[in-house]
Amino acid sequence: MVTTNGQSVRVAVDAMGGDYAPQEIVKGAIQAASEGGIEVILVGSEDTIHSELAKHDASRLLINVVNASEVIRDGESPVAALRHKPDASVPVAMRLVKENKADAVVSMGHTGMVMVSAVETLGRLPGIKRPAVGGLCFPTGPNTVMFDMGSNVDCKPHDLLNFAVIGSAYARKMQNISNPTVALLSNGAEEGKGNKLTKEAYQLFKQSDLNFIGNVEGHDITRGSANVIVCDGFTGNVLVKFCEGLGDLIIKRLNGTLDKRLPKEDLDAISNELFNLTHIADVNGGGLIYGVDGVVWIGHGRSKAPQLAMSIHQAKLAVERKLIETLREELAKMEKSVSQ
Amino acid sequence: MVTTNGQSVRVAVDAMGGDYAPQEIVKGAIQAASEGGIEVILVGSEDTIHSELAKHDASRLLINVVNASEVIRDGESPVAALRHKPDASVPVAMRLVKENKADAVVSMGHTGMVMVSAVETLGRLPGIKRPAVGGLCFPTGPNTVMFDMGSNVDCKPHDLLNFAVIGSAYARKMQNISNPTVALLSNGAEEGKGNKLTKEAYQLFKQSDLNFIGNVEGHDITRGSANVIVCDGFTGNVLVKFCEGLGDLIIKRLNGTLDKRLPKEDLDAISNELFNLTHIADVNGGGLIYGVDGVVWIGHGRSKAPQLAMSIHQAKLAVERKLIETLREELAKMEKSVSQ
Repeated sequence: MVTTNGQSVRVAVDAMGGDYAPQEIVKGAIQAASEGGIEVILVGSEDTIHSELAKHDASRLLINVVNASEVIRDGESPVAALRHKPDASVPVAMRLVKENKADAVVSMGHTGMVMVSAVETLGRLPGIKRPAVGGLCFPTGPNTVMFDMGSNVDCKPHDLLNFAVIGSAYARKMQNISNPTVALLSNGAEEGKGNKLTKEAYQLFKQSDLNFIGNVEGHDITRGSANVIVCDGFTGNVLVKFCEGLGDLIIKRLNGTLDKRLPKEDLDAISNELFNLTHIADVNGGGLIYGVDGVVWIGHGRSKAPQLAMSIHQAKLAVERKLIETLREELAKMEKSVSQ
Repeated sequence: MVTTNGQSVRVAVDAMGGDYAPQEIVKGAIQAASEGGIEVILVGSEDTIHSELAKHDASRLLINVVNASEVIRDGESPVAALRHKPDASVPVAMRLVKENKADAVVSMGHTGMVMVSAVETLGRLPGIKRPAVGGLCFPTGPNTVMFDMGSNVDCKPHDLLNFAVIGSAYARKMQNISNPTVALLSNGAEEGKGNKLTKEAYQLFKQSDLNFIGNVEGHDITRGSANVIVCDGFTGNVLVKFCEGLGDLIIKRLNGTLDKRLPKEDLDAISNELFNLTHIADVNGGGLIYGVDGVVWIGHGRSKAPQLAMSIHQAKLAVERKLIETLREELAKMEKSVSQ
């Protein structure tokens, strides 16, 4: 092992979380560390991690191990386990960030547990009641991100405003869009269209400093009509899952129609392309928690080494681009302007 | 012209409504009347209709003309025009049903005007606050219909219950499904999942006589998981339009990928298949108004003769299958059971 050089981004990785922990987590950590600029801190049962590391040639990489003396077993309620196992890998990793011994946390563990632990240890950003996982980039060009995609099913207009602030900061910091356009998802383009929630939010958005361009409709999501599209988490969840279902149906239909007319490898390539286009959550592999005062990435439990390496890279990017600092400032500014 | 034989379904057709009125309306009426079992009553400016009819060999068909002495001109607000033009084609057609001189109305005119005129003349069914156009059959098999698809953006749990009753009656009467399964669209399958609206509706649905199977998720819409899927009109509207947008995007991508690999006519056939799969509102060509005490079909303004003939056929089917009588009974029964 090599000690930190003070310039790398320090990412605490939950070595015990996910369906393929610790093998694939350690492998992914090695992949990420090989790319440079990252110190990976593997958090978990020290002996287990070291014996996994011993299977690879990791001696010259910036990888450290921090012991977590408790393990949450299969069958335990993960969120309840947090209460009596404060030294499990997830809370230990969160404390590393809290104590400035790490810059970010990446976990493929139980979403609810990671979320609760992050909120308890790192706290919420200004005005945020319930942090959100994700925010989904619709792969219809690099330029449309949607919030909220499922964490907040019952929203107030002010929640939508927070999603807009989060989305704008994400677009600027993570996607390099200088003045991202923001729109409300509604059932019509005109100002008067919408349900009670979106109509009230429309008035808040108009008064804000956001680059608000008004309502967009369902078909606009795939047309790049706005950089940030805001909706409540119920609508967002239904949309993302419908997108998957429609994608599956179209792939099935095309395989039926094109079966004899295209070589199998071409058909597979088309199926893959359409799968990636429509299974956005799978392709994203997880997401940052938005609204927590720290960089925390939650990935899918089924993630393997490449997804873990990608997640570490995304967390590193969020640290380098000062995403949380930006969010903290802008959410506080929004709170102030709304309360006036 | 031939007088009615007392056995045909009498469909009053608004000859003045739609982008291609009266030419295509008259042509479509002739098509529908040729199929038999229908008396078409063309409602509008008598002279105009007769001169259109004279262009065709319609003398042996069951087509009658009822004069509407007033015409709503381009540029008039259609809904406002109802006030001072009670003898325009739409209100005259509605009165034919009210006075039992016709069994159904078909119009390609302004949706809002037809809706208002229908409610004013025919009245609402029990428990219905705002009638809904449509209800969309997702073309993923003949067996899934969704309500509401846009008319009621702000719903109470009881509204969702009405949509479920409407959807069940539709599935039984129009799709011949004997005991249709009903589900609530939510963000998770378990009973506790949902936003405030769907969680409250869940309890109402459980107590009802509906064949309620619980929540379904967005991906279930295309999987035939339930015969009737219920959601609020805001969610429904966003979904149907998103479906169109995603369809367009996939068609574009496939045309790019397959351009050199398939003959143009094959590629066009695939594009058409995907268009029909994803542009549900276009394919349906309009829909019945649900919640009005009479059979009223509103079609797209851009409909031509074949769409008009199809619309007349659908209206005839609704009359023959006693859809409105069924709805009236079942909505009244539901009102009674809920108020107890």
